[in-house]
Amino acid sequence: MVHPKNIVVKISGKWINPDKPEIIGGYARVLKKLYEEGYRIAVVVGGGRVAREYIAAGRKLGLSEAMLDLMGIATTRLNAMLFTVILDNLAYQGVPRSLDEFMEAWSTGKIVICGGFQPGQSTNAVSALIAEAIGAKLLVNATTVQGLYDKDPNKYPDAKLIKETNIEETYRILIREQHYAAGGYELMDPLSLMIIKRGKITVKIVYGGDPENVYRAVKGENPGTTIRPE
Amino acid sequence: MVHPKNIVVKISGKWINPDKPEIIGGYARVLKKLYEEGYRIAVVVGGGRVAREYIAAGRKLGLSEAMLDLMGIATTRLNAMLFTVILDNLAYQGVPRSLDEFMEAWSTGKIVICGGFQPGQSTNAVSALIAEAIGAKLLVNATTVQGLYDKDPNKYPDAKLIKETNIEETYRILIREQHYAAGGYELMDPLSLMIIKRGKITVKIVYGGDPENVYRAVKGENPGTTIRPE
Amino acid sequence: MVHPKNIVVKISGKWINPDKPEIIGGYARVLKKLYEEGYRIAVVVGGGRVAREYIAAGRKLGLSEAMLDLMGIATTRLNAMLFTVILDNLAYQGVPRSLDEFMEAWSTGKIVICGGFQPGQSTNAVSALIAEAIGAKLLVNATTVQGLYDKDPNKYPDAKLIKETNIEETYRILIREQHYAAGGYELMDPLSLMIIKRGKITVKIVYGGDPENVYRAVKGENPGTTIRPE
Amino acid sequence: MVHPKNIVVKISGKWINPDKPEIIGGYARVLKKLYEEGYRIAVVVGGGRVAREYIAAGRKLGLSEAMLDLMGIATTRLNAMLFTVILDNLAYQGVPRSLDEFMEAWSTGKIVICGGFQPGQSTNAVSALIAEAIGAKLLVNATTVQGLYDKDPNKYPDAKLIKETNIEETYRILIREQHYAAGGYELMDPLSLMIIKRGKITVKIVYGGDPENVYRAVKGENPGTTIRPE
Amino acid sequence: MVHPKNIVVKISGKWINPDKPEIIGGYARVLKKLYEEGYRIAVVVGGGRVAREYIAAGRKLGLSEAMLDLMGIATTRLNAMLFTVILDNLAYQGVPRSLDEFMEAWSTGKIVICGGFQPGQSTNAVSALIAEAIGAKLLVNATTVQGLYDKDPNKYPDAKLIKETNIEETYRILIREQHYAAGGYELMDPLSLMIIKRGKITVKIVYGGDPENVYRAVKGENPGTTIRPE
Amino acid sequence: MVHPKNIVVKISGKWINPDKPEIIGGYARVLKKLYEEGYRIAVVVGGGRVAREYIAAGRKLGLSEAMLDLMGIATTRLNAMLFTVILDNLAYQGVPRSLDEFMEAWSTGKIVICGGFQPGQSTNAVSALIAEAIGAKLLVNATTVQGLYDKDPNKYPDAKLIKETNIEETYRILIREQHYAAGGYELMDPLSLMIIKRGKITVKIVYGGDPENVYRAVKGENPGTTIRPE
Repeated sequence: MVHPKNIVVKISGKWINPDKPEIIGGYARVLKKLYEEGYRIAVVVGGGRVAREYIAAGRKLGLSEAMLDLMGIATTRLNAMLFTVILDNLAYQGVPRSLDEFMEAWSTGKIVICGGFQPGQSTNAVSALIAEAIGAKLLVNATTVQGLYDKDPNKYPDAKLIKETNIEETYRILIREQHYAAGGYELMDPLSLMIIKRGKITVKIVYGGDPENVYRAVKGENPGTTIRPE
Repeated sequence: MVHPKNIVVKISGKWINPDKPEIIGGYARVLKKLYEEGYRIAVVVGGGRVAREYIAAGRKLGLSEAMLDLMGIATTRLNAMLFTVILDNLAYQGVPRSLDEFMEAWSTGKIVICGGFQPGQSTNAVSALIAEAIGAKLLVNATTVQGLYDKDPNKYPDAKLIKETNIEETYRILIREQHYAAGGYELMDPLSLMIIKRGKITVKIVYGGDPENVYRAVKGENPGTTIRPE
Repeated sequence: MVHPKNIVVKISGKWINPDKPEIIGGYARVLKKLYEEGYRIAVVVGGGRVAREYIAAGRKLGLSEAMLDLMGIATTRLNAMLFTVILDNLAYQGVPRSLDEFMEAWSTGKIVICGGFQPGQSTNAVSALIAEAIGAKLLVNATTVQGLYDKDPNKYPDAKLIKETNIEETYRILIREQHYAAGGYELMDPLSLMIIKRGKITVKIVYGGDPENVYRAVKGENPGTTIRPE
Repeated sequence: MVHPKNIVVKISGKWINPDKPEIIGGYARVLKKLYEEGYRIAVVVGGGRVAREYIAAGRKLGLSEAMLDLMGIATTRLNAMLFTVILDNLAYQGVPRSLDEFMEAWSTGKIVICGGFQPGQSTNAVSALIAEAIGAKLLVNATTVQGLYDKDPNKYPDAKLIKETNIEETYRILIREQHYAAGGYELMDPLSLMIIKRGKITVKIVYGGDPENVYRAVKGENPGTTIRPE
Repeated sequence: MVHPKNIVVKISGKWINPDKPEIIGGYARVLKKLYEEGYRIAVVVGGGRVAREYIAAGRKLGLSEAMLDLMGIATTRLNAMLFTVILDNLAYQGVPRSLDEFMEAWSTGKIVICGGFQPGQSTNAVSALIAEAIGAKLLVNATTVQGLYDKDPNKYPDAKLIKETNIEETYRILIREQHYAAGGYELMDPLSLMIIKRGKITVKIVYGGDPENVYRAVKGENPGTTIRPE
Repeated sequence: MVHPKNIVVKISGKWINPDKPEIIGGYARVLKKLYEEGYRIAVVVGGGRVAREYIAAGRKLGLSEAMLDLMGIATTRLNAMLFTVILDNLAYQGVPRSLDEFMEAWSTGKIVICGGFQPGQSTNAVSALIAEAIGAKLLVNATTVQGLYDKDPNKYPDAKLIKETNIEETYRILIREQHYAAGGYELMDPLSLMIIKRGKITVKIVYGGDPENVYRAVKGENPGTTIRPE
């Protein structure tokens, strides 16, 4: 049950939050364009500054990691709601809190925007699960970086952007570079990679600061890194 | 159906938000103490910095006031959630979104914490409605000021704190001083005053920066202004 | 985000209730016609005889005003449900209980019918909030009177119907004539007026006993009073 | 899993509706007394005048019987809500709409009040299902008559009240007297009788116009007719 | 409010369950074909082997019949969910649990699939209620047998298949043959027959082991037994 | 916010399913005993035979892994429901579908039983998250094996049961032995281990075929393997 025009867009919380109204506006224009070209689009919004603030406060107050995660997820939903109301009648006017609720919302034929689902599961993993659930073969990940590098670009000035690779290689790089450690740039966690692999989903990592990159990626260009599923 | 030990505490969003973990912790201790003394407590949390950020972003993006209000309410719920999880098993672990849901949560006998309910209705009005619904005769309003002044203290250095007054007088002062205008300190709007009056609820306005003021107000002291309902 | 073909119709509970099946049928025909002409319609149904009965009973039993309001709202939802099932597949087959739920239902593209939302908020205010939320520029208020009069027509035989006016003038008349007092004909409360003003919504007050008045008002006629938002 | 102090009270819609505030008050006192004596009580409220009005209106408007049933159920829920808010903190402050929701509400330990559940199922059947689900061995049915008669008392002046009988005999009488026809007094339908039989539930039919009859029936008296399950 | 292209298909739990993926696939193809021809289809799935397993386990553990019924209904919903996800974007991606929820889902214009609703109500009765609610005039009942026989075909080798009959006659046969006793083949219970009669719904009983029979029945053929409503 | 009497019990789907009514009964007795001794217990039920059947059917029908996971989770909830209704008024009569819903149910003070939450997250991970969320320091994992072995006991007859170990060592063994591969005995996945570690939770792995092992583990014995969090 592959649907070639179904697409998932994961957007870093850095871009969809109250500090970036212009970028939100840019994403709204891009999604409108794609919607009118016949694409069906699911969007997953990550955490960001506001999430970090609530998590930091909760941590000072002695909350467990599970409850901090719950707070963070609530914040991603707030960002998702902001984006949802901006999209007006192009979007389903609610923020699904689980894959079940997502599927119900998806039935309406509108753009559906969500944040995280459950503690212990990143918004990257959520975007991969949704891609699999709706038979999407393309997941565009609009991140804070230009794409996947062979080394951590923050540490090594000679790090090179990888234009094309596959899941196995991605896994090796992320592990080697300890991208999962604190301060890593959280491109994809092992669960996301596993789902992408089994779902035979192509991932395009793009720089999310320019919403047009998402449009380009959907239309066949490769503005950052393309990760083939096999 | 008056319940003398039922109490509503309205806390300004200035105090319950990720910037103030120590104050949240202070409120948690005060509520625990009151709960253990047999009081049944409903808490309403107002908006604050984070609410203002989302509203400002939405306004730049062209959202209507109704939708901005919806965003602000979602933020008050996030603050309510933070406080709820901190209170752990003293509090009902959910944030009611309407008076109906509040009453269901209230059935559990736990402290119940909520934010706003609906656009067009302030969190002050929500706290007054809840007081009426649960037969509370005391509403403690933990604000950003010391109490009610005869003039706007921000404009007039000789403004005097009023220790005791009644609803009619409060209404006159708030109207005269245009406290409802932008920049006013939003003590109570006309709807809140009307509900307080008809519900024969005593309001104690206290400075919310010291959570102990709420304890004192509940135990019969008057740390700020007391407004009698008749 | 103005949508010129989005329209809100507020109908007094006097017309949508079990005593008036013919009028309900008339409204169903009018809405069907408008729907087929491409209008997207939200309907808000007020209270009426049945609401008054439940409120009177609750008052005798000592319920607070907040709980009476909750009972009244439940009754408006029952009337909304009756109208909803009559409209069959033209209408979303559920009655939203909040603006959030309304927006979700509105996503389906069907006519959405609701009653009140929360205590402390009239159905007039609900209709104004919905108009603002969906970018409607016209709110037709099908009331129990012919329109706005310069004096209370029940008291003064020489009261004159005002054909056109604006929000400021409406506010002055309603205040002067104490339309908000018991027995006043509850055209619009201050909250409704405030939302209409900020939302730049044109209100047409029409006599709701003839459903065709709603059709005429939508199609540009002025069967009662037109209130301009500026 | 029999719970000897669990009891179900079915009250005819004739007694719990806005026309009978005094009787509602009487039932509230009876339930309070039983609750304080340690009984756990589920209440099912039937339809009545208001239900008949909505059904009549819907029928004139061409609704199918299924939709009319849905309207009638919505009305029983409104009556249940009125009774619920009157009972204040003795009752779970919500009206369950299904057996699943009832069981969740029952978890709170409060009195739970509901109306009908689904079209095609009488409120008598609902009360029998609930009795079975909570392991109650007594169902008090507060009706519009004094109890079960050997003939229809409306037609035969010599009809005799039966003080004690069993399910089989009850079934024979109800069938013979065509109590299920329009105008019959709807004591119990075949589904209710079947559930009562399999659940080994004793039914006491009492005249509901005097709430004390319910108290007497629970405390071992037989103010009307007692139907033994075997 | 008759909708000639609205159709209800009841499918025995024998065919929609994890043991029969091929038959589920067959039904998916038939529904797709009908959907593309413009029919609007509601599906009700019955219990089956898995339902019987949970009911048997519950019975050994002392559950009441009402709770066993609740377990059985939960299982029919699991089968409905399996069928729902198979149908992918042709179906509303949720399983309604009541007629209210069904009507909301039906608003989306998709195929809606449900299992049972409430204890004390068979899935046959659910399918009849839905037919009535959506104004369908045809209910296809895909059973485990070829149609209605004049005698129980399991007991009498000379039992004859009845090709056409009416509700009254059906009722007489089912009563006489005690089809409602344990081991009877549960074609239709009295409640289902009553709804079908009042709703003037034509029932076609077909052998569900061949999904094409449903297609044939919808297109005017009579692959099993046709029961006319009058 | 550590609660020493809060405990999580994870039970393999092998033991809570319709094939094992006696074992379910045994677990009911053990939980009742612990509940009466003052322990507060959350239970997570895994998948089992029925889950595997639905997953196998869905796979034949071409469902994606995400949807298969959704089917499997629905089945764990069915098992959780069976156990819930058996526990009667000791348990919250609902099955939470997310950590948010779990926390609401936990507010009631009853035993709460759930299955899986979201695709991509094992029931082991769910049990670890719940332990963390409720401040439990003990998670008893009632599995299909006697405890943790140094080698896969299915392959090596000389595999030795490890009585005590820590998280790091457990991780090494599970990785080395490829317990995560298909056919491995799924003791704990990396996400579960990570949560257990950060939450400082002691895990006791016991053979679930004897429910008394859970009682022993809670009371301080070590019937299988104890994994210390540091």
